[in-house]
Amino acid sequence: MTLRKKLYEIIFEAETKAGKLFDVVLLISICISILVVILQSVESIHVRFGSIFYAMEWFFTILFTIEYGLRIYTIEKPIRYIRSFYGIVDLLAILPTYLELFLAGTHFLLVVRALRLLRVFRILKLTHYVNHGSIIVKALKASRFKIVVFLFAVVNIVIIVGSAMYVIEGGENGFTSIPRSIYWAIVTLTTVGYGDISPSTPLGQFIASMLMIIGYGVIAVPTGIVTSEMTKFNKPVSAEACPACGQDGHDVDAKFCKYCGYKL
Amino acid sequence: MTLRKKLYEIIFEAETKAGKLFDVVLLISICISILVVILQSVESIHVRFGSIFYAMEWFFTILFTIEYGLRIYTIEKPIRYIRSFYGIVDLLAILPTYLELFLAGTHFLLVVRALRLLRVFRILKLTHYVNHGSIIVKALKASRFKIVVFLFAVVNIVIIVGSAMYVIEGGENGFTSIPRSIYWAIVTLTTVGYGDISPSTPLGQFIASMLMIIGYGVIAVPTGIVTSEMTKFNKPVSAEACPACGQDGHDVDAKFCKYCGYKL
Amino acid sequence: MTLRKKLYEIIFEAETKAGKLFDVVLLISICISILVVILQSVESIHVRFGSIFYAMEWFFTILFTIEYGLRIYTIEKPIRYIRSFYGIVDLLAILPTYLELFLAGTHFLLVVRALRLLRVFRILKLTHYVNHGSIIVKALKASRFKIVVFLFAVVNIVIIVGSAMYVIEGGENGFTSIPRSIYWAIVTLTTVGYGDISPSTPLGQFIASMLMIIGYGVIAVPTGIVTSEMTKFNKPVSAEACPACGQDGHDVDAKFCKYCGYKL
Amino acid sequence: MTLRKKLYEIIFEAETKAGKLFDVVLLISICISILVVILQSVESIHVRFGSIFYAMEWFFTILFTIEYGLRIYTIEKPIRYIRSFYGIVDLLAILPTYLELFLAGTHFLLVVRALRLLRVFRILKLTHYVNHGSIIVKALKASRFKIVVFLFAVVNIVIIVGSAMYVIEGGENGFTSIPRSIYWAIVTLTTVGYGDISPSTPLGQFIASMLMIIGYGVIAVPTGIVTSEMTKFNKPVSAEACPACGQDGHDVDAKFCKYCGYKL
Repeated sequence: MTLRKKLYEIIFEAETKAGKLFDVVLLISICISILVVILQSVESIHVRFGSIFYAMEWFFTILFTIEYGLRIYTIEKPIRYIRSFYGIVDLLAILPTYLELFLAGTHFLLVVRALRLLRVFRILKLTHYVNHGSIIVKALKASRFKIVVFLFAVVNIVIIVGSAMYVIEGGENGFTSIPRSIYWAIVTLTTVGYGDISPSTPLGQFIASMLMIIGYGVIAVPTGIVTSEMTKFNKPVSAEACPACGQDGHDVDAKFCKYCGYKL
Repeated sequence: MTLRKKLYEIIFEAETKAGKLFDVVLLISICISILVVILQSVESIHVRFGSIFYAMEWFFTILFTIEYGLRIYTIEKPIRYIRSFYGIVDLLAILPTYLELFLAGTHFLLVVRALRLLRVFRILKLTHYVNHGSIIVKALKASRFKIVVFLFAVVNIVIIVGSAMYVIEGGENGFTSIPRSIYWAIVTLTTVGYGDISPSTPLGQFIASMLMIIGYGVIAVPTGIVTSEMTKFNKPVSAEACPACGQDGHDVDAKFCKYCGYKL
Repeated sequence: MTLRKKLYEIIFEAETKAGKLFDVVLLISICISILVVILQSVESIHVRFGSIFYAMEWFFTILFTIEYGLRIYTIEKPIRYIRSFYGIVDLLAILPTYLELFLAGTHFLLVVRALRLLRVFRILKLTHYVNHGSIIVKALKASRFKIVVFLFAVVNIVIIVGSAMYVIEGGENGFTSIPRSIYWAIVTLTTVGYGDISPSTPLGQFIASMLMIIGYGVIAVPTGIVTSEMTKFNKPVSAEACPACGQDGHDVDAKFCKYCGYKL
Repeated sequence: MTLRKKLYEIIFEAETKAGKLFDVVLLISICISILVVILQSVESIHVRFGSIFYAMEWFFTILFTIEYGLRIYTIEKPIRYIRSFYGIVDLLAILPTYLELFLAGTHFLLVVRALRLLRVFRILKLTHYVNHGSIIVKALKASRFKIVVFLFAVVNIVIIVGSAMYVIEGGENGFTSIPRSIYWAIVTLTTVGYGDISPSTPLGQFIASMLMIIGYGVIAVPTGIVTSEMTKFNKPVSAEACPACGQDGHDVDAKFCKYCGYKL
């Protein structure tokens, strides 16, 4: 086995002891490096430990750069890796530090490293989590058409109500422009309700009340969509595949394969 | 084919090449015209580009007026079109600009044009979306009686709690009138919580707490209503029974009866 | 038929023409009298129309007092009516005006009249609404044990987190006492979030974040409870009763009565 | 029967009259002692009744200490009790008063006594509540993998959006550090929306709007998870199949098979 092959097994797989160790070290490094970025933004900590943190940031960036290089070097089809979701995330996780040299403030974007943690599920062979995660993803995918229709309705409501409030309340009450009024409408419809902008005129308060009740009731729609899809995917399906055609996903009460008619 | 017939095909249908082009141009025009209205309301943009935007607004209004005229001219039953939902929306989408000549500020109501975008689903033959949208509409329709009962209960709670808070908290704490207190009760029940009015007395805070917990729990009711209807309409089960054993409830992708193995 | 019997039919029933008229007049009177109370609380309206509204309030109170008297007079078992839900509401709907003579401010409690509107469903024979309303009530009743357990958990969380925040944040940040901190915890857990009290210390903000995520996720529990009950009551049940034993509520796919085994 | 055995029955069981009395007295004592702690934190009450409440606190603490001692003395396996959930709660319920002697302010932690109230369900033989509570617990347990995946996604979103907002809005608008921005992101995503920190720049408001809509829609996910599990556990369907035709899914109140009419 060549060195390249060996390195591939360590970096990309988690079957061998060395591969597992690599993954665990990687995960811990990612966590620490995120923590460093977060803490660095706190004024009092930055003043005391700024230089240490600065060094740590460069240390982790160089570490991840080497790792990124090794990944490209060891994999069979490097282009495919670079273009994959994980490849892009791995690149985004090192770029900000270099960008910081030219553009101040960008290094906080390093927190995008958090996305690298998604590997944790694959690495630790947490198949339970992967299965359950995939049910969520499947349910959301099946709901995508309905969710687009729903979002379209929400955007329409928000634009129309936002503009109406701009006309009714006007700039003196904080509704200084339609975009700002739309922002207010979103804050209200989603029941967040900061209170940085709030209606003062009786008519404005009446329309706001309507919008709140709509928002309060309308949340039932996405919930209904996702729940009904999730119930569908979550139904007890037999674990056994059809011995004749190999298809699975049969109902627990099925006595014959629904695809080939073979007796189960 | 007469010109009128040809124009009808272009304007109302999307089968021919010209018809498709017309629809796409229309959709883009609507989007741009909405954007113009929204941006015009931003002070800094209005100062710089006010006259350009004013010209664009008139351009789009005249365009949509011509389109509205052609729709009436080409269709068989113009009265029916004028009275239809789309007919009313098409009219409302041009009126505000003309109204602006007499009444300042009304032209912001042009955003009602957003409703014209509803055509997008029909035009682009997004049958997927239309189907899924119709499931939402069907579920909401089936829930309408329950939702009216629910809204009736909400209105009752809000009036009674609002009035009680007016008596308890009084004007010094922001509860200056019953309508305003009802507005506060809606803000609280729907969990929006602006904080522009909030209780200060211990008793008021206690009642507010009760109202919040009710609002927090009560949201389960519309959600439950819509979800249970949606689950019903969302069934992925074939409507056909097995011709051999008469059992139904087969999956839509089933090729053989799961109970007797008969070919469906 | 005696006068008493005739009056009973007019007041309590809605079969005859006179009975229907009585009910419609009553509903309108209730709505107007509530509106009067609400508008009277608005300073500017009170100043201008105070005396008219005062007269109207007494007019409606005397009207409802007469009606209440007639109800007691005409019904067979007056004690049972007085003790019933509607009897108590009818009494509460007239008391505040008389109380006002001794205790200022209480007349706003007249809005309790809103509860009288519950009759609207029975009066107008809106059986659709009554059926659907009863599904909601049945689902909530079936959920009552689970909801009590849930509320018990919420109360526990709120007391413990509230007290912890009192110790951590202290009076300078608005957490001046444990009851007030519990109020804050409820405002936060139910995602209302007024912002009249909000944590300032890092530890306080961390605990608040945890509480928010709990509140955000925990809303799934009452929703899940009510939805699953509602789905149960909402399932398509055959409209036909068993011809042998007369029991109904059979599943649509039932071929034999589940109570007596008779072939349907 | 030895004294130790008798005491065991009184303290740990609720079959005998003395045991029931003990439990009721205990529950009332817990409630009063919690109330004492809560009221003691209110300045005006503390000033007037401080010394009485101080005495009561010590009284209850000594009472619970004796009870704790007796529990250890009378039980067969004291180590197991001490390590059990109830054992730890019982200890935590008395410690803070003693700690107060060394560390001021800790005695407010006495509210942890609220957890002791969990016994109420077991004591009062409220099997209904216990059953229904266990359905909630079972549904939550079955959902645990999906909930972890969901929380992981939420944490990721919150870290990335929080950091982005720190860069965009900066310290002048209240986003003084990444931890504080993450706190804001949680406040927004969970739709709490205090408004103590809120975006001021157009880009910040746009990102906040996206986050709100995500938060508003994403709540559908935990709700969907818990609801679909709860529906599964909440089935009112008999576990037994028909002995004649083998079909299952009968209602629990069914006396005859709905498919073949055989007596169940």
